[in-house]
Amino acid sequence: MINIGLLGLGTVGSGVVEILESRKEKISSLIGEEINIKKILVKNVNKKRDIHLNKDIIISNFEEILNDHTISLVVEVTSDIEQSYEYVKLALNNGKSVVTANKALVSKYFEELSALAEEKNVSFLYEASVGGGIPIIKPLKEELILNSVDKVQGILNGTCNYILTRMFNEGLDYDEVLKKAQELGYAEMDPAADVEGPDTLRKLRILGSLALQGKVGEEDIILEGIEKITSFDVRQIKLMKSTVKLIGEVKEYEDGYSALVMPTIVKDGSYFASVNMAFNSVTFEGDNIGELKFYGSGAGKFPTGDAVLRDILDIALDFDRKQNPLGHRILKNNNSEIKDKYYLRISESKENILKSVEDISEKILSTKDNIAILTNEVEIKEIMDIISSLDIEKDEYFIARILD
Amino acid sequence: MINIGLLGLGTVGSGVVEILESRKEKISSLIGEEINIKKILVKNVNKKRDIHLNKDIIISNFEEILNDHTISLVVEVTSDIEQSYEYVKLALNNGKSVVTANKALVSKYFEELSALAEEKNVSFLYEASVGGGIPIIKPLKEELILNSVDKVQGILNGTCNYILTRMFNEGLDYDEVLKKAQELGYAEMDPAADVEGPDTLRKLRILGSLALQGKVGEEDIILEGIEKITSFDVRQIKLMKSTVKLIGEVKEYEDGYSALVMPTIVKDGSYFASVNMAFNSVTFEGDNIGELKFYGSGAGKFPTGDAVLRDILDIALDFDRKQNPLGHRILKNNNSEIKDKYYLRISESKENILKSVEDISEKILSTKDNIAILTNEVEIKEIMDIISSLDIEKDEYFIARILD
Repeated sequence: MINIGLLGLGTVGSGVVEILESRKEKISSLIGEEINIKKILVKNVNKKRDIHLNKDIIISNFEEILNDHTISLVVEVTSDIEQSYEYVKLALNNGKSVVTANKALVSKYFEELSALAEEKNVSFLYEASVGGGIPIIKPLKEELILNSVDKVQGILNGTCNYILTRMFNEGLDYDEVLKKAQELGYAEMDPAADVEGPDTLRKLRILGSLALQGKVGEEDIILEGIEKITSFDVRQIKLMKSTVKLIGEVKEYEDGYSALVMPTIVKDGSYFASVNMAFNSVTFEGDNIGELKFYGSGAGKFPTGDAVLRDILDIALDFDRKQNPLGHRILKNNNSEIKDKYYLRISESKENILKSVEDISEKILSTKDNIAILTNEVEIKEIMDIISSLDIEKDEYFIARILD
Repeated sequence: MINIGLLGLGTVGSGVVEILESRKEKISSLIGEEINIKKILVKNVNKKRDIHLNKDIIISNFEEILNDHTISLVVEVTSDIEQSYEYVKLALNNGKSVVTANKALVSKYFEELSALAEEKNVSFLYEASVGGGIPIIKPLKEELILNSVDKVQGILNGTCNYILTRMFNEGLDYDEVLKKAQELGYAEMDPAADVEGPDTLRKLRILGSLALQGKVGEEDIILEGIEKITSFDVRQIKLMKSTVKLIGEVKEYEDGYSALVMPTIVKDGSYFASVNMAFNSVTFEGDNIGELKFYGSGAGKFPTGDAVLRDILDIALDFDRKQNPLGHRILKNNNSEIKDKYYLRISESKENILKSVEDISEKILSTKDNIAILTNEVEIKEIMDIISSLDIEKDEYFIARILD
């Protein structure tokens, strides 16, 4: 019997409990022993819950898990960073393996927790922290044994992808779709972590650090969200037979790497254009395997619960190497030198603005009400400098990178 | 040290040897021991080879591998079915694990070899037999612990996909592209196993049997190849803003399942339409995980060698459960009852032919030179009966299923 201490009983936690219950016999017969959730730590023990559970296992004191020597595995599925960090560190230090779905936690303490788990000879797994249900962390780690990986890209946030898909497919306004996404539970009441990009950035930080075998920190990634996109932009980009996705990308060059999260223009008919609604996708390239692409549900109770359980099963079956998967390469960040083509819209049409962007314009799409241009190959910094120099509000522009 | 006996030194075998050589240190440091190819069985020991190897390890007598007690793993990468079957059976019976990339072998003897490996408590792995480098067998087996899987679909043959992509994108004739594919080594001189569909059928037989946890035999799958497609068909289907892919599909319904390999019309902009050239893709659906899609190189020395090596690593690390992954469900084949919409072209235009297809026509696309129709929802058997009743040669028609 494997005893688990579960931290959190929200959407993902309930998914874990329910799948475990419904697949109990199958799991026992396959792995030869039972997986048992022995204690569940919650903030409010008395909260009414839609889940069939023995009430005695619901607790509010982490010590009960930490000091229970029959619990060998802590499964962390909260959205709290600092409190969870303390618990996870205590668990690892006490020789308990940890599975987490918490990308903010993994992103912030990736190097420290990975090293600590190896030191204590326990597992630290986080498949569900990137791409929801998609198997991506494990396949990437497996390919890293046989490949140098020099590129990883992904549509990593279901909320953004849902909003963008409906704006492009149905011609809806940003605010309208965001409201619907909130009603459906796809978007939080405070949607900033999704639409402004930090959630994607954290997932990219995890993927990029694994892929390049050196630290790609949160601060090493250029960040632009989707929150400024308007129906005007959608119309312009549809005329280019293209659509927009929020894509995170880490790419290694001979002399360094670039890392960015940015609204990205992809051609209709391309792979990324086929990833719609709340689905996510991750792609990476290795020198032997070539390009691999993975697609699936980026969030949700059962897909994410399924990913957490795959980690749990790997630990139960002793299928984890318990080695720190992070490399020690010192990477040179080349963000400021990378040139790309961009779509740039500024929500005002003044002669001085048009003049300011003239040097970087390859094509002018509009000068009426909005100034919209396609740039030639420029450094992102050059565009940002121009924008800063203009007398406009910070929500009065939208920029999207054009992917070949 | 893990000693391997390698059977075959063709494209895949060379890939395995070369990746193993180039990643030697990485592998040793990660798994804590060396993986060593101790003997390589070939038909012709004296053949000149473009590969740097100690000549002493190249042998022509399988007994040297079978009787070498230091060899715990046999890696079979030939395209021979019956000879390999004997060798693999002998290896398993002698307590050696087996990794194979040979889909024809796995397809023909799937149940027997899977049961034998379990009985002997050794591993029998075949990741490279389906989808080349794409990780698909392992993720599917992992999800089967946590899910009921009721659908699996795939573009499983790179040669067909290469031919179809170039016909649709460049307007080339079938014969012209096939010739180019042969020149580039993408297609065999006898292309029947690819273009007529048996290769796809074997891979689907493997995926379908795993997914549904019951035997889906080669004979249970409806088979149509792409070899009859003409530029006329390409033009008609492009007018439908669609393209054609050779798709294998196994799908379970409440009262049975269907299994087919058939040219399939998919809408431009859809996921499958974005899988081009020699790439493959497999998708499946589980009740918890939802839909997962995997995309990558469907063939080739290094991608396929990489997949073989992933299996080898799993055995070296003792990460295989050594359980027969096949289920014992008795499945009811519903192929004859499944209704779909089809595109049907017959290369003659006679009044009696038009009359024969009238009952199943939803839309007539052409009556000049070729008769081409879109059918209403019909059973495939009904179409085949009509075709048999007509006085036409067997290569004078083309049929493609229309996917929603």
